[in-house]
Amino acid sequence: MTPLCTQLNLTTPIIQAGMVWVSGGKLAAAAANAGALGTIGAGSMKPDLLSQHIQKAQALTKKSLAVNVPLLYDKAEEQIDTALRLGIRIFITSAGSPKIFTKKLKDAGAFVIHVVATPELAKKCEAAGVDAVVAEGFEAGGHNGRDELTTLTLVPQVVDAVKIPVIAAGGIADGRGIAAVLALGAQAVQMGTRFVATQESSAHDNFKQAILHAQATDTMLMMKRSVPVRLLKNSFYEEIKAAEETCADKDQLLSILGHGRAKAGMLDGDLIKGELEIGQIAGLVHDIPTTEALITRLMSEYRAVSRAFPMFP
Amino acid sequence: MTPLCTQLNLTTPIIQAGMVWVSGGKLAAAAANAGALGTIGAGSMKPDLLSQHIQKAQALTKKSLAVNVPLLYDKAEEQIDTALRLGIRIFITSAGSPKIFTKKLKDAGAFVIHVVATPELAKKCEAAGVDAVVAEGFEAGGHNGRDELTTLTLVPQVVDAVKIPVIAAGGIADGRGIAAVLALGAQAVQMGTRFVATQESSAHDNFKQAILHAQATDTMLMMKRSVPVRLLKNSFYEEIKAAEETCADKDQLLSILGHGRAKAGMLDGDLIKGELEIGQIAGLVHDIPTTEALITRLMSEYRAVSRAFPMFP
Repeated sequence: MTPLCTQLNLTTPIIQAGMVWVSGGKLAAAAANAGALGTIGAGSMKPDLLSQHIQKAQALTKKSLAVNVPLLYDKAEEQIDTALRLGIRIFITSAGSPKIFTKKLKDAGAFVIHVVATPELAKKCEAAGVDAVVAEGFEAGGHNGRDELTTLTLVPQVVDAVKIPVIAAGGIADGRGIAAVLALGAQAVQMGTRFVATQESSAHDNFKQAILHAQATDTMLMMKRSVPVRLLKNSFYEEIKAAEETCADKDQLLSILGHGRAKAGMLDGDLIKGELEIGQIAGLVHDIPTTEALITRLMSEYRAVSRAFPMFP
Repeated sequence: MTPLCTQLNLTTPIIQAGMVWVSGGKLAAAAANAGALGTIGAGSMKPDLLSQHIQKAQALTKKSLAVNVPLLYDKAEEQIDTALRLGIRIFITSAGSPKIFTKKLKDAGAFVIHVVATPELAKKCEAAGVDAVVAEGFEAGGHNGRDELTTLTLVPQVVDAVKIPVIAAGGIADGRGIAAVLALGAQAVQMGTRFVATQESSAHDNFKQAILHAQATDTMLMMKRSVPVRLLKNSFYEEIKAAEETCADKDQLLSILGHGRAKAGMLDGDLIKGELEIGQIAGLVHDIPTTEALITRLMSEYRAVSRAFPMFP
C-alpha cells in the first residue's frame, strides 16, 4: 500500500480517470467495486446530467467516488455544488488555478486533487492547500500542458518539489507502467486511455474498436501553441495538421475545432469528422475487458514485475 | 543481472551514451571502469580524432568499449573501419537504416546495437540481424524521432515487438528512472544528459553549469517536422522558435542552424549563440560528480527503489 491509497481506502493504486463523454456512473461504479478510485468526468455534463450519473453510480457501489471538474467550464461551480450535495467528497480539478475552489472544497470536508503538468504548478497547488496532485505527462490523451514534459521526467521532479502525494498520469496501460511510475515515487496512477476500452465505458463501440487497431504512432499532440490536445489520427486530425502546417492562427484553428466534434467522435462514433481524444499508449491496448477483469489483470501484472526486479552486485 | 548485461560483461545496467562533442575517451574509460558500458561518440570526430580517443580510452581501461556511429555522416564507414581496426567490437548505430552496416559489423564479430524511436523500426533492426535496440523517447536530448513517442510508451511496445534485448533511453537521470524502465522490460538504460554533467565529460564548464541551473521546463524539441532536436532554451533556441512561429521552411531553418553551432555551444561554451543539445531530464541534474561516484550512486538509488516496492493485497 501507499499512504495515499490508505487515506482514500483503495485496495489498488489505480484511479480511473474522469474523461469527457466516456466516464459516466457505470464505469466509475465498476472501477470503485474493483478496488480502484472510480471517477465521473463532469466536463461533458450539465449539472442535471452529472446529478443523474452520481446517483446511478451510488446505486451500483457503496465505495467512495470522485468527480473530475475541469475548471475552465462556466458551470464548474454548479457541478461542484451538485456533487457536494450528493455526498461526493473526492474532487479532481484541472484546467484552472488551484486557488479558485480548493478552500471551498476543503471547507466542505472534501479531498482535493489537482492536475498539473509542471513542478511549478505542483508547488502552487501545495501552497493552495490541495491534498494531492496528478502529474500528467505529454503522452496523455486529450488536453495537455504546453511544456511537453513527459511522465518519466515530470513525475520524479514533482515528487521532489512537493510533500503532498503525487499520482502519475499519461502513458500507463498495463502493470509494467504502474510499476514504472511507482518506482519514480508516485503513490498511485491515473489511467484514462486503458479505461476507454472497457465494457462499462460510454465510448461508442466504433471508438473502442479504433483504439484496439491503433499502432504506437497513431496519436499526435496537436495545437501545441494554443490548446494542446492529443488526438487519434483521422480526417479531423488531418484538417488540423494541414492548417498548422500553413501557420493558421488560433482563431482559424478554433473554427476548425468547431463545436460538438468531441461528442461526435467519442460518444456518437463518427471516426471521420469526430475529435478522438486518446493517449499515446493506445497502441498497447488490445482488448475490451470488463473493468473488474482489467483491474485484476493490471494488479497481477504489477505484482509479477515488482517481485522480479533484476538485481546487480 | 539481465541477459544483456551478462552478455556484454557489465556489472551495472548502465550505458553511457555516445554524444557529439561530449563523450571522448576519458568519459568512456571512466564509465567502463565503473561497471557501465563506456561509449565514444564518433559523430563529431574525423577518423583520426576517433582513433586518438579510442587509444586514449584503451590506455585507461581494460574493459570493452563501444563506439556510437550516426550513419548520416559521410565518414560513417571510415569511422567503423577505424574502430574495428583498433579492436572495438560493440557498436551503437543510429540515424540511418540498420541494413547498411549490420552485416559488415556482424561479419567482423561485433555486437550491434541500433537506436530506434518506433516499434516498427525495432522490427526492421531485428530482421537485419541487429543484436539489441536502444528505444529512445521524445524526452531525449539532441536528435530525435518524428513520431514523438515517449520513453514510457515506446519501451514496452518495443519489448512486445521484438525478441532481442531492449535498452531504454530518454528521460533517465537517477536510480528511480533506471528502476522505472527496467520495470517496463528494458534490460539496460542508455543515459546521456546525466553523463554530460560529470567531471570526465568534454562538455565546456559553461554548458555543465547551464545544465545544473536548468529547470524542468527549460528544454524543448524544435524543428519537429524537419530534423527534430531537443535543445536547452537560449538565444539560439529563440531564433529557431521565432522562425517556426512564422512558418519558416526547412531551408530557412537549416540556414539558422548553420554550421558549428553545436561545437560552439557544447564544447566551446557559447551559451548564447551555441546549440545546446540536452534532454528534458536536465532539471533533475544537480551536481557534477566523477563518473565513478555517479554510477555508484545510481546503483545505490536503484537498489533502494527496487527493494521497497509498495505491495497490494
